[in-house]
Amino acid sequence: MSNVPNALSQREARILGIIETARSKPAKFRDERITMAHGAGGKATARLIEGLLAPAFGMTALDDAGAVDTDLAITTDAFVVKPLRFPGGSIGDLAVNGTVNDLAVAGARPLALSLSLILEEGLDAATLAAEVEAIAAAAREACVTIVAGDTKVVERGHADGLYVTTTGIGRRDPRATLSPASARPGDRVLLSGAIGEHGTAIMLARGEFELDAAVESDTRSLWPDVDALLGAAGPHLRCMRDATRGGVASVLNELARASGVAMLVREAAVPVRPAVAGACELLGIDPMHVANEGVFVAIVAPEGAGAALAAMPDGVDVGEVRTEPPGMVLVETSFGGKRVMDQLVGDPLPRIC
Amino acid sequence: MSNVPNALSQREARILGIIETARSKPAKFRDERITMAHGAGGKATARLIEGLLAPAFGMTALDDAGAVDTDLAITTDAFVVKPLRFPGGSIGDLAVNGTVNDLAVAGARPLALSLSLILEEGLDAATLAAEVEAIAAAAREACVTIVAGDTKVVERGHADGLYVTTTGIGRRDPRATLSPASARPGDRVLLSGAIGEHGTAIMLARGEFELDAAVESDTRSLWPDVDALLGAAGPHLRCMRDATRGGVASVLNELARASGVAMLVREAAVPVRPAVAGACELLGIDPMHVANEGVFVAIVAPEGAGAALAAMPDGVDVGEVRTEPPGMVLVETSFGGKRVMDQLVGDPLPRIC
Repeated sequence: MSNVPNALSQREARILGIIETARSKPAKFRDERITMAHGAGGKATARLIEGLLAPAFGMTALDDAGAVDTDLAITTDAFVVKPLRFPGGSIGDLAVNGTVNDLAVAGARPLALSLSLILEEGLDAATLAAEVEAIAAAAREACVTIVAGDTKVVERGHADGLYVTTTGIGRRDPRATLSPASARPGDRVLLSGAIGEHGTAIMLARGEFELDAAVESDTRSLWPDVDALLGAAGPHLRCMRDATRGGVASVLNELARASGVAMLVREAAVPVRPAVAGACELLGIDPMHVANEGVFVAIVAPEGAGAALAAMPDGVDVGEVRTEPPGMVLVETSFGGKRVMDQLVGDPLPRIC
Repeated sequence: MSNVPNALSQREARILGIIETARSKPAKFRDERITMAHGAGGKATARLIEGLLAPAFGMTALDDAGAVDTDLAITTDAFVVKPLRFPGGSIGDLAVNGTVNDLAVAGARPLALSLSLILEEGLDAATLAAEVEAIAAAAREACVTIVAGDTKVVERGHADGLYVTTTGIGRRDPRATLSPASARPGDRVLLSGAIGEHGTAIMLARGEFELDAAVESDTRSLWPDVDALLGAAGPHLRCMRDATRGGVASVLNELARASGVAMLVREAAVPVRPAVAGACELLGIDPMHVANEGVFVAIVAPEGAGAALAAMPDGVDVGEVRTEPPGMVLVETSFGGKRVMDQLVGDPLPRIC
């Protein structure tokens, strides 16, 4: 028998799982109905998870007590992106990369995926075959094996072509000692690349806006980048997060709350490509709230920031961790002013992943 | 580091996963559109899995070559049952028990589950809370921990209340040396209990038939039963399968094909409660094709059959493995005649789990 214990540790569950948006003060769930906002990755999602799901499953507030007692990590994600195909990718790519990236930013090397499909009656076989091929190609690219699967069919009008759920198994990398509660004043806030591309590509692909811009989703596996970062600055790395639903703003808010610190971001330092910036301005959305599928935030101790940036080909230092006001994210504008950058409220960008 | 290897073995994937309906000759997928039949667990499902999914993910025909190189097993299932609540259970119970049972019949002790929810906009919070509680209660009952989760929301009319996907992680029990290809002529075919209850309960709960019968779903964790069976007759146990979608008939057909043997079932020996038998007769459905959520089939070497039955409180010997005709299941009727019992064709019982 191996020395893997009889159950995956609660702590891993907390780090990776259902409680990934945990805050210092758990929200209460008193909503009467589910709205699109509950799926947006912002405040309503936090209420649903912290107020209903986490307590029901015996997961309490995030802490980093106790040793990790297994080297395997697990994460799961449902994908309901609309449309199924968009510039730069498709639901199949997302379903692999999204889950692989959750493992990667938790410091776990992705090994294997399970795949569950919910198909709508009438879905044409060519669409399905294209997504199956996209899943297979993304899995090869990310060096993960599909080890289990399931397929269900629902009647016409009870899904949107197909929904995909993937569950990822990874092996914790010993170079990673990460916790969302470990950010300390003075730490640097790094971004792995230009933001807002995935969400903008999806919005444009829907054709709801009379706007034509060449923006492609950034969907890809982040493990190679994380691997390089762990090699260059592992001991100095406090925590990483991929900035998906809710964007960089939501990630920073969650980390600020989990660590009881403030984050200060210099707006001028945040890389946003002109086409994305233009589209977001026209759509009235802050790129910091827009989903990414190939960008992560890394909080790094100041003495490791240089080595970390050297290992990140497109990495940028965008700000720092501060003491006050705890649990909040401030943006320093190009004009020198400061404003609070909150989590998403409502769901301006539904079904982005 | 533990001695768990760098990836879950391909063999485990084959045993547990996407290729669980593998036959000696893989079917081809040439259908133009997805129909409800692709979700029914019968021939169309086999075409989809063997003809499209398994080849894309590099999973070839079932074999039992090679040693198992890890003691962890993984399985996944989507649940789209309609209605959400029915006599004897709900989608939440099913989502835990169905996945736990896939592990159990593969000879793996269930340890942990991940949980992914797709919610329909407008779902009322009380319904969601009830299912969350059902999931938590079933998980406690089955002694598994929920270790990861995700929630997505789709617009009104793009789901049916909620869909649930669970992925299960189990530890392979060293007493189990199971393979669907290991059935040998002379082996006994055992059933763990009376059949047809889950599917019948769902059909009646839908109210599509003017039929009122007191039938409850048999949804429950099978691990305690499997544990007892492994203790009593482990070395003699060839293989187990929970008889869900497609019923006992589909399980026996799959095993007959995987082992290249025939199965002979004595119809009179198959336990069917009167209410189920009556409902199935009125609905024109063979109970052998009806889904169960708390019944499994065990193929046992003849010398172990007595001990196995003694360990199964409601176990019954319903038939035997024969040589001819290979890959087929024959039913001996009460009148002494024989008929071929095929897999389901089409989907007479949609969205049963």
